[in-house]
Parts: sequence; structure tokens; C-alpha cells
Amino acid sequence: MHILVTNDDGVTAPGLLALAQEMRKLGKVTVFAPDRNWSASGHVKTMDRPLRVREVILADGSAAFSSDGAPSDCVALPLLGLLEEKVDIVVSGINPNANIGHDVTYSGTVTAAMEAAIDGLPGIAVSLDSPENHKSGLDYSTAASVARRVVEKVIADGLPAGVLLNVNVPYLKEAELKGFMITRQGLRVYRDELDRRLDPRGRPYYWIGGQAPTGVDEPGTDFGALRAGYVSVTPLQLDLTAREAMDGLKKWKW
Amino acid sequence: MHILVTNDDGVTAPGLLALAQEMRKLGKVTVFAPDRNWSASGHVKTMDRPLRVREVILADGSAAFSSDGAPSDCVALPLLGLLEEKVDIVVSGINPNANIGHDVTYSGTVTAAMEAAIDGLPGIAVSLDSPENHKSGLDYSTAASVARRVVEKVIADGLPAGVLLNVNVPYLKEAELKGFMITRQGLRVYRDELDRRLDPRGRPYYWIGGQAPTGVDEPGTDFGALRAGYVSVTPLQLDLTAREAMDGLKKWKW
Repeated sequence: MHILVTNDDGVTAPGLLALAQEMRKLGKVTVFAPDRNWSASGHVKTMDRPLRVREVILADGSAAFSSDGAPSDCVALPLLGLLEEKVDIVVSGINPNANIGHDVTYSGTVTAAMEAAIDGLPGIAVSLDSPENHKSGLDYSTAASVARRVVEKVIADGLPAGVLLNVNVPYLKEAELKGFMITRQGLRVYRDELDRRLDPRGRPYYWIGGQAPTGVDEPGTDFGALRAGYVSVTPLQLDLTAREAMDGLKKWKW
Repeated sequence: MHILVTNDDGVTAPGLLALAQEMRKLGKVTVFAPDRNWSASGHVKTMDRPLRVREVILADGSAAFSSDGAPSDCVALPLLGLLEEKVDIVVSGINPNANIGHDVTYSGTVTAAMEAAIDGLPGIAVSLDSPENHKSGLDYSTAASVARRVVEKVIADGLPAGVLLNVNVPYLKEAELKGFMITRQGLRVYRDELDRRLDPRGRPYYWIGGQAPTGVDEPGTDFGALRAGYVSVTPLQLDLTAREAMDGLKKWKW
């Protein structure tokens, strides 16, 4: 079993190391991650510039690859032949914040798993629902262990073609988890605000600011599961067709 | 009716101008587009740096805004209050290449329309299925006219909440169009290849190259409609949950 581990926070992120170390219990691991942070970068395919790949050493002394491409590039490059050995499964994370609701379209963590699905491989994105005021020194041990358990299931049972898993883990000790819940994508509530400032020369610039996003706490959703202390496992697909809208549109007269 | 027009090719792109000019027949138009090309950039929310906004003049002498943010930022900024006047609808394009199948997750044109849907507005992405060997001097007149006809329908009938439209137009004269088809997202077939080269210092770099993508020619899909000479109108949603996969996953024993 050859597991490709990537992320969107960059090759030096502690969540990546925790994930890679746990995945080594399941097979051969290759770490191939961006050389910088690509959070909220979306699904990128870099075609307007060439990409560099470097061999780097992680904090535990193990070898890894880093690239100046986006998370999805870090999946595409090895699958297009940069690695000689065939990859069996792609695991992305561990993101230090939850990726739920509409986040999945922005999230580099999730789009890396999308890229795997497009290329016909199982893809799994893992994110930790860390508390808002606790962004450094996070404990990734529960999320890493959960990731291993999910990947074990995927290795044993497979995933339907074109389906990826979006896994979100509560910030709890493993013994405190209520269990695993298969969920649907919920509704994110963004609280972005425009923050207009003046630079030292008196010219305006704009931050997209505001409070951290929240969500609609519905049972059966990713957000609802996390709130209730469950690991949320959401199967996602790459077909975005709004089938329920089709009949209405077909009545339009042109 | 206040129409926000954006794109992912940048504020100087001819497809943007063609779209803006046609939209002016329907109401007040504000052009707010990136200052550079963001093709294949995905759904980006820029939160790690502030954004600049400039007033610029388009080739027809009309005023527009450009920003150093991504296409989705160019939707978010005005909706967050940078424009005083309320926006009613967001139209993105005209992209010089089709955005079909899995392209929709990569496409800046489509993600700008997604951003509108997240913000509760109708979003419409318009792309031209131009021939492979014809990338300059494209005739956008059919696509612009089609965009106007689609936007007229959306203004009249609205769109369901959370639904955006992905419109792809064949490269034909308007009289040659077979008609409009409401389609589902088809399957893209990427033919990417890794192109390894050596720089002048003998160090490797990598292009994601290969032939242009093709698709699976199935009736009822975006790709099938274009092949048959129809305008493809695909309703897309932001809920990516793979509902058909849920029952299988719920049988997993943890």
C-alpha cells in the first residue's frame, strides 16, 4: 500500500507530520506537499508556469518532497509520473481548522482529495475542528488516529468511483469521541466583513475580515456531527449538477 | 437591475468587454475583474493579504474596477460593501474556452458564480467553446447574445437558492445554434502529461503539459450538448454530498 500524503498548509506544518507518521503504520508513505501555505486556495491546476520539486527533510528526519505548486499540483505531479512507484491512495491534511459546508469548494485540503478522485484514486481530506482561540501547539493525535481508522476502512472496502471523503474531527481526546457519523455537507455561515484601511501614503486597501465562520447546526450534517462530538465523514462527489433544478429550467422557453 | 460582471482572464480580456457591453442592454453594469489572468485558479478567498482596488478604463472607454484579488474576491469585495449600490445578479465570463465536466471545480469563471450563490445572489458563468487552434481574435458575439438571453430568463424567473448556471456556447453564428439544452455536468477527460525539462543550470523543472482535455460524449451532458451544436445550460449546486454513497458508508463498522 503506497499512500501519498499532502496538505495545503505547507510541508513544514505539524498536521502533515502527524498524518504522515500515522499513515506509516499502514504502508509506504510519500509526503509531497506545497512549499508554502495555500489555505483557501481552491482547486488549482498550474499550467502557466513550470513547477519545481525539492527533496526536503521533515522534523522527524524523514524524507519528503515539496513543490512550489498548489495542493492539487502536489497530487497531480506524482500521479503524472514524477514518482516511479504507483500511488494507491491520497490523504490530505491534517488541516488545523474544520472544512465543512461551503468550505469544501475553497479548501486546498479538500481539493487535493478531489484531484485524487479525478485521477481515479481514493482521496481523503482530514481536518481538525480546533477551538477558535487555540491555533498553535494543537494536539493532532486524535485526528491522526481517526485518519488511520478511516484509511483502513477505505483500503478494505474501497470508495465508489469519483467519491472522496471529507473527514472532520472534533478537538477531543480519542476516548471522548462519541463515534463516527456519515454526514451530508451542511451550510456554512460566513461572517466576512470588509475592513478598509489606509496605507502610509493615504491610499486605501481592503482586508476580507470579520469573525470566523459558523454553521447551521442541523442533524445529519458535518457541522451538526462536530457539534455533537462525532467524527464527521462526508462523501463528496465531483458532479455538481443541481438535479432538482433541472425540471424547472427545462420549462424555460427560448 | 444592477449586474456585476467579472471574469478570470483579467480586466483587459476581450470576452469581458463583449459581456459587459451586452449586459448594458439589461440594466446598470459594474465591471469588477482581476488585474491579471487567474485561469484554473479554483475558488479562492484571499485572507492572508490585503487587496487593492483600482478604477480603470476599458477599451470602449467605460469605467471599471480591477483588483489584485482572485475572481471570487472580485465578487466578494463589491458584495461586502465596496460598492454602495446593491448588486442583483453576477455574470462571469466570457471565458475563451469551455468549462465543462470537472473543469467547474478548477474554473475561476465558474467559481465567481459560486461566490455569488454563496452570497445569495444568482450567478451565471459563460464560456465559449472555441476551436483548439483559434485562441486569438475570437468572435464573442454569439456567446454575448446567449448570455443576455440567459440572464433575461434568470431576471424573469429567478434561480433556486444556492443554484448557479454554467453556460457553455458553441463557436457558431447565432443562427446556426441548434437551441438551448438544460444539461448535467459530464465527464472531462484530461490528457495531462508531465513535461520534464532542465534549466540553463541543469536543474529539472516540470510543466503540466499534454493535449487539451476532451470529454465523454454522452447525451444530456454539457459536452454532448456542445458537440451537437446546442448551448449547454447546467444548473450547479454547492452541495457536493455524494448521497448515493452514504448508505454504503453507513454500513462501515467502527
